[in-house]
Amino acid sequence: MRATVIHGERDVRLEEAPEPQLIADTDAVVRVVAACVCGSDLWPYRGVTPTTEPHRIGHEFVGIVEQVGAAVSTVSPGEFVIAPFYFCDNTCVNCANGVSTSCLNGGWWGAVDRNGNFVDGAQGDRVRVPLADGTLVATPEIPTDDLIPSLLTLADVMGTGHHAAISAGVTAGSTVAVVGDGAVGLCGVLAAKRLGASRIVAMSRNDVRAAIAREFGATDIVAERGDEGVARLKEMFDGIGPDFVLECVGTKESMDQAIRSARPGGMVGYVGVPNGGPELPIRRLFNTNVGVNGGVAPVRGYIEELLPEVLSGAINPGLVFDLEVPLTEIAEAYAAMDERRATKVLVRP
Amino acid sequence: MRATVIHGERDVRLEEAPEPQLIADTDAVVRVVAACVCGSDLWPYRGVTPTTEPHRIGHEFVGIVEQVGAAVSTVSPGEFVIAPFYFCDNTCVNCANGVSTSCLNGGWWGAVDRNGNFVDGAQGDRVRVPLADGTLVATPEIPTDDLIPSLLTLADVMGTGHHAAISAGVTAGSTVAVVGDGAVGLCGVLAAKRLGASRIVAMSRNDVRAAIAREFGATDIVAERGDEGVARLKEMFDGIGPDFVLECVGTKESMDQAIRSARPGGMVGYVGVPNGGPELPIRRLFNTNVGVNGGVAPVRGYIEELLPEVLSGAINPGLVFDLEVPLTEIAEAYAAMDERRATKVLVRP
Repeated sequence: MRATVIHGERDVRLEEAPEPQLIADTDAVVRVVAACVCGSDLWPYRGVTPTTEPHRIGHEFVGIVEQVGAAVSTVSPGEFVIAPFYFCDNTCVNCANGVSTSCLNGGWWGAVDRNGNFVDGAQGDRVRVPLADGTLVATPEIPTDDLIPSLLTLADVMGTGHHAAISAGVTAGSTVAVVGDGAVGLCGVLAAKRLGASRIVAMSRNDVRAAIAREFGATDIVAERGDEGVARLKEMFDGIGPDFVLECVGTKESMDQAIRSARPGGMVGYVGVPNGGPELPIRRLFNTNVGVNGGVAPVRGYIEELLPEVLSGAINPGLVFDLEVPLTEIAEAYAAMDERRATKVLVRP
Repeated sequence: MRATVIHGERDVRLEEAPEPQLIADTDAVVRVVAACVCGSDLWPYRGVTPTTEPHRIGHEFVGIVEQVGAAVSTVSPGEFVIAPFYFCDNTCVNCANGVSTSCLNGGWWGAVDRNGNFVDGAQGDRVRVPLADGTLVATPEIPTDDLIPSLLTLADVMGTGHHAAISAGVTAGSTVAVVGDGAVGLCGVLAAKRLGASRIVAMSRNDVRAAIAREFGATDIVAERGDEGVARLKEMFDGIGPDFVLECVGTKESMDQAIRSARPGGMVGYVGVPNGGPELPIRRLFNTNVGVNGGVAPVRGYIEELLPEVLSGAINPGLVFDLEVPLTEIAEAYAAMDERRATKVLVRP
């Protein structure tokens, strides 16, 4: 089969790889129907985090189950499944606490699992899925093709935007600003809307993304950034800022802006992968009673809640995909994201 | 009248000061019945934060109203009142949001207010109270003397411990560890108990304080600190740690211990005044989904909730006072706290 391998800065290649096999009886093999490129894939792609040796890449996919181990009971060959951006047993104490990203038996796509066995990356033809019962969620029936993009967002970006809003504690009638107009930030707008926020500001200076934000429920678009962005938000909300700020980027600047934008006593919900910091300014947080909550999003636990709304069309997070390419053009998928020609690229094997 | 002035490291003096006068018609003058020394007073006392010029000190007091300005309507001369460790209008948007420490018109004892007028410190005979209607809470009747210590804790330490628990989000049936066995930490134990925590660990290696912690509701005492303290807490709670950790110290070590002790997805509620840092380790927080919430405690807003329980004897936070001295011995009050001969010192003019 084919699989995407990152070799170094701006060097991703589609290569031949061994067909995945069932190893444990809790494994499944899934044929990938759609995968995508994540904003966090751009850190190694841009060389911000170094690639010391070539490795498989990609962590978001939906597909069709082809094989299951003897102990797998919740999914069957032929079913369409959504895989979160990590695998987990969904039963350990951390999973039970809603933090399946800290699963005691879980792990990551494109890496070696706790038993020393390699786990495939998602940007390829097939994936061996450890702990298939815990990891995979099957749809009631094979979805129509138009639903694939939105279903794929449940693997990461929609669940991650939702986690930002949940971590911040967004409530009905509250005010929210979203820092970041990438796919996660846009999904954060949609998540805040679902939770009943009365006013949602998307920070964006990109007309295409701002239009999606509006479609997702943004009531206001603010183009200013940094000090000017903070000042604009303060001005819009009683001079003090919005109740909640969703940080969906992960840079020092974006986190700083988020913390300074929230009103006293407000909360920052963050999901942007911290990219070399920053450490959080405790004295500012202390003086203003602004809290910070979030982290790597336990999206597995959100799939059951969000899936019916995707299937019914109540939400359409798949709008974040504005480019689709075949797997053979995976390098172009990365380049388009890197050069901001695309917000989010869907890849079909 | 007499007032305490800090001149520098380990140099506090009781000096003569002008009698306070009503300046604004929203002012009151209160005769101090009891004041105390705060752990945060020890930072300048120890020279950790430098004292560049002599200034009044003390921010916790209860007393009897002597005079009120023409616009004051909620308190009257002769009433017994509790003053939080700051003053506030209790009506601005931040106060309405429950963050009266960020009151748009508020300020601090022993400093200059927004109108350029000096506000007295609490460790003296009398205090001019700006914004008396918002700041002061009168008791239904003059309390008996045995209630004075617990009432005085509502000015700061009990409300601050409560804020740690509220900020962490302590819920009924949850598990809590408290870092810090000073007056605030002990009150944090009591607050967690009030909120229904099922298991509460006090981190202490001081028998007297551990005994108070037990009386306040601690189910376990852990003497270990740092790495050993973290490991002990993990071991006690399913190998992952307690749901909530209350950080009630403010040092780099205590915050680090708190963050590393909480289970994945847990929350640190912190109220220790950050003493020169630390900045928070965003990558660890991100990976574990441990959140951090809290800050300078808006205790004014908690007085109405806690006061009836103090008056009925349902809670007795005044147990944190283990030394009482007359105001003439204010230097001894500081020394006893500094040398850890006392947990909390009550001072009577």
